[in-house]
Amino acid sequence: MATSLGEIAETFGCTLKGDAGIVVDSVASLASAADNQLSFYSNTALQPLLENTAAAAVIVRPNDADHCPAAALIHDDPYACYARIAAALHPPAPLASGTHSSAVVDTQATVAESSELAANVVVGRNARIGERCYIGPGTVVGNDAIIGDDCRLVANVTVAHGVSIGRRVILHPGAVVGSDGFGNAQTAEGWVKVPQVGGLQIGDDVEIGANSTIDRGAMDDTIIGRGVRIDNLVQIAHNVQIGDHTAIAAQCGFAGSAVIGQRCMFAGHSGTVGHITVCDDVVVMGKGVLTKDISEPGVYSALFPAEPIRDWNRKAARFRRLDSLQQRVSELEKKGQ
Amino acid sequence: MATSLGEIAETFGCTLKGDAGIVVDSVASLASAADNQLSFYSNTALQPLLENTAAAAVIVRPNDADHCPAAALIHDDPYACYARIAAALHPPAPLASGTHSSAVVDTQATVAESSELAANVVVGRNARIGERCYIGPGTVVGNDAIIGDDCRLVANVTVAHGVSIGRRVILHPGAVVGSDGFGNAQTAEGWVKVPQVGGLQIGDDVEIGANSTIDRGAMDDTIIGRGVRIDNLVQIAHNVQIGDHTAIAAQCGFAGSAVIGQRCMFAGHSGTVGHITVCDDVVVMGKGVLTKDISEPGVYSALFPAEPIRDWNRKAARFRRLDSLQQRVSELEKKGQ
Amino acid sequence: MATSLGEIAETFGCTLKGDAGIVVDSVASLASAADNQLSFYSNTALQPLLENTAAAAVIVRPNDADHCPAAALIHDDPYACYARIAAALHPPAPLASGTHSSAVVDTQATVAESSELAANVVVGRNARIGERCYIGPGTVVGNDAIIGDDCRLVANVTVAHGVSIGRRVILHPGAVVGSDGFGNAQTAEGWVKVPQVGGLQIGDDVEIGANSTIDRGAMDDTIIGRGVRIDNLVQIAHNVQIGDHTAIAAQCGFAGSAVIGQRCMFAGHSGTVGHITVCDDVVVMGKGVLTKDISEPGVYSALFPAEPIRDWNRKAARFRRLDSLQQRVSELEKKGQ
Repeated sequence: MATSLGEIAETFGCTLKGDAGIVVDSVASLASAADNQLSFYSNTALQPLLENTAAAAVIVRPNDADHCPAAALIHDDPYACYARIAAALHPPAPLASGTHSSAVVDTQATVAESSELAANVVVGRNARIGERCYIGPGTVVGNDAIIGDDCRLVANVTVAHGVSIGRRVILHPGAVVGSDGFGNAQTAEGWVKVPQVGGLQIGDDVEIGANSTIDRGAMDDTIIGRGVRIDNLVQIAHNVQIGDHTAIAAQCGFAGSAVIGQRCMFAGHSGTVGHITVCDDVVVMGKGVLTKDISEPGVYSALFPAEPIRDWNRKAARFRRLDSLQQRVSELEKKGQ
Repeated sequence: MATSLGEIAETFGCTLKGDAGIVVDSVASLASAADNQLSFYSNTALQPLLENTAAAAVIVRPNDADHCPAAALIHDDPYACYARIAAALHPPAPLASGTHSSAVVDTQATVAESSELAANVVVGRNARIGERCYIGPGTVVGNDAIIGDDCRLVANVTVAHGVSIGRRVILHPGAVVGSDGFGNAQTAEGWVKVPQVGGLQIGDDVEIGANSTIDRGAMDDTIIGRGVRIDNLVQIAHNVQIGDHTAIAAQCGFAGSAVIGQRCMFAGHSGTVGHITVCDDVVVMGKGVLTKDISEPGVYSALFPAEPIRDWNRKAARFRRLDSLQQRVSELEKKGQ
Repeated sequence: MATSLGEIAETFGCTLKGDAGIVVDSVASLASAADNQLSFYSNTALQPLLENTAAAAVIVRPNDADHCPAAALIHDDPYACYARIAAALHPPAPLASGTHSSAVVDTQATVAESSELAANVVVGRNARIGERCYIGPGTVVGNDAIIGDDCRLVANVTVAHGVSIGRRVILHPGAVVGSDGFGNAQTAEGWVKVPQVGGLQIGDDVEIGANSTIDRGAMDDTIIGRGVRIDNLVQIAHNVQIGDHTAIAAQCGFAGSAVIGQRCMFAGHSGTVGHITVCDDVVVMGKGVLTKDISEPGVYSALFPAEPIRDWNRKAARFRRLDSLQQRVSELEKKGQ
């Protein structure tokens, strides 16, 4: 969507240094942008790329405008500004409102006329789909599920029965929301399945990555707060509560009934055990597992970086012998007395 | 399904303390239950919730009946008892036997008339589906696959060709069973794919979580024993054998040809390397990896809980300098002689 | 496909010790093979199985032919040789060229006549599918995606819009390629989605496992090199580059913009942080995370094997008290001076 820099500066609150009449139609990285494209710069390590960019314009911080060989769109937060401008230049494909002839929609489902149901979609009994939704090919929406306005279920998504999804929610391909939690009672004859009769509530403006899984509650509901961002292959167990605006990177896992605060961030492969409470503004580094209640905001870690195996094995051997080292020190202390 | 407490007590072997004529129609947690609902109590940390519950009845241990403000269904194992009663009160939707007009069933497949095939199901050549199965929307059943009686494939499940599934098996959305194992032979020109000609056998009463993957064997079969419970996003590689009644939490992984005993439990993100044998009744804590044969039942762990990053980094630095600490102790010992 | 040992020896460059007229029709393990079957032997731990095999023939190294009770197909690399012969004996089902009546193919898509599109496949606008492809049931191919010749998308695969896939690529069930990367800009009002306008290029001869996810780039493309092998439930984030012939086991994760060399191997649950460069020929052991640039080929690790929990807890306690141990040694050193 071609737009002039003047228009962009006005719409997105930037100060323009350069020709307001220059037109851009898409975004690209500093290194690959052409003269019809816009980029952004916020990481000083990339200054050489900035200085050599062929972009028509670059979004920069006030201090960086002088290094910009192209028109500069000056903003205090170039990345967020870029995100908004990129969304305007690259809007999603317009909806083809209506239901594809191959979709199977229960006669007792309610689908807004403004929404698009793509090929091979299945919508169950009493399900409700709001205005301007895109329900992508192969997606299954279970009985009694509710999907708010302006949602986008990309493809092959599964929404289980009774799940409640807010507005402007994006579910990427293969995501499963509302599957049964892992509830089993141990008996002498083996496991007895515990029916998972709770639900799942997903707030407004949530995004859930490809092949992630979020379970419904055992009795009460699993709850995903507003503005939560979840990457691919993440597991959220039954009765977990994720606070508003928390971000969860790929392959994280949250065990049952964990309660996570607002604005937390979990790096890849991290997570928590079950039945703990984590306060707001907690950051967990990659692979870290929180194992008890956390009441102090801050950064948490337990990561040993991989290193050459000979070095690692030597350290691991020392670790295994810590007991003996401790005893030798005690011996020395006794002798010294 | 509304039922009187008298009937419930009789059917499920509880002693009733209270009015046998009270009717309940569903289950709920102690905190949220209303006076038409049943709950259970087995965790003493929740005693305040018990004492304030509005539930019509609560399943409790004999000793706890006096604390129960509602009718008490007394049982030695309240959780297992709850699981069974909840299943009776919340039965699965009755099957709509037959095949949806949008399903594609090979003319050489055999599908029991009592089973329901939902919208957009695909069933391959010579596949056989037993009695009273529910094959949910978007599910693909490959050629020559066999599915026993009373199975439930919820939605968007993939059963690869030739997989053999027992009775009363539940496969949650996105589960893939029988995909090719990861077999590659290294050559100077790159990897050569090793055809995966083995099969996959899944026993009776198995449950497999959303988006979990279980590979077929390279030559012989991968085997999942009876009563095994597998959570979401679990990976089971080719030729693994999982013993009866073993339970596997989310995101666990088992490398090729691992042989796991009966009644083992694997917490989240744990697993084993390949080609090892693990005896019965082994429990592995979260993130733990078994790397060699295990012949002693018991609990295994290697978890460092995440902690404030400053504390962690100081310890990790000490760990990196263990060599030097060891040397300093040796020096001291030499001096002391 | 029944073939004589003479033919096999000639086609695959083996030396035959035994009757060239013997016919085999399939492969099996040493333990289970019958007299119409072929096996291989390369692991000396299995010598008893070799000596007792009922196979018609076994592929062996030159030195092992004397231990082989059956006909011996002698080759320097029995496993790679086995892989090639097994592929010939077990060819994929012949294609039923054409498009199933239930498939939904956009009128502006281009599908080679030699390809097979199975039931419930959806192909988007301007997508192009090459010669002799198998597009399995429930698979969704997005707008503008390009799939090269001889690809095999097994079932329920999602190829997002604009993804470019080379020749002879295999995508296993549930794989998602080209989903949006995890790009979010933090603002006072919450996360702002960063449009993911880059693409995804997948080279020739790549294999991607069940339910794995590979994201498209944020601005530039994510790139998977030629001959790369990816197991199940692997996550590859936006703008990652994976070098040719690298092999990645199940549940690995690669954070954004990591650049991985050629012929690397990542064991299960391992991976890298983002924005690092890893040279060729690096091997990472299970659960290991590379956290900085790696310029030396070799094996990297940070794995503590799980052990009996009492032993582990004692070591972990010692680890927590390393600070104090260090201080005690310093005290002793001071006294000794």
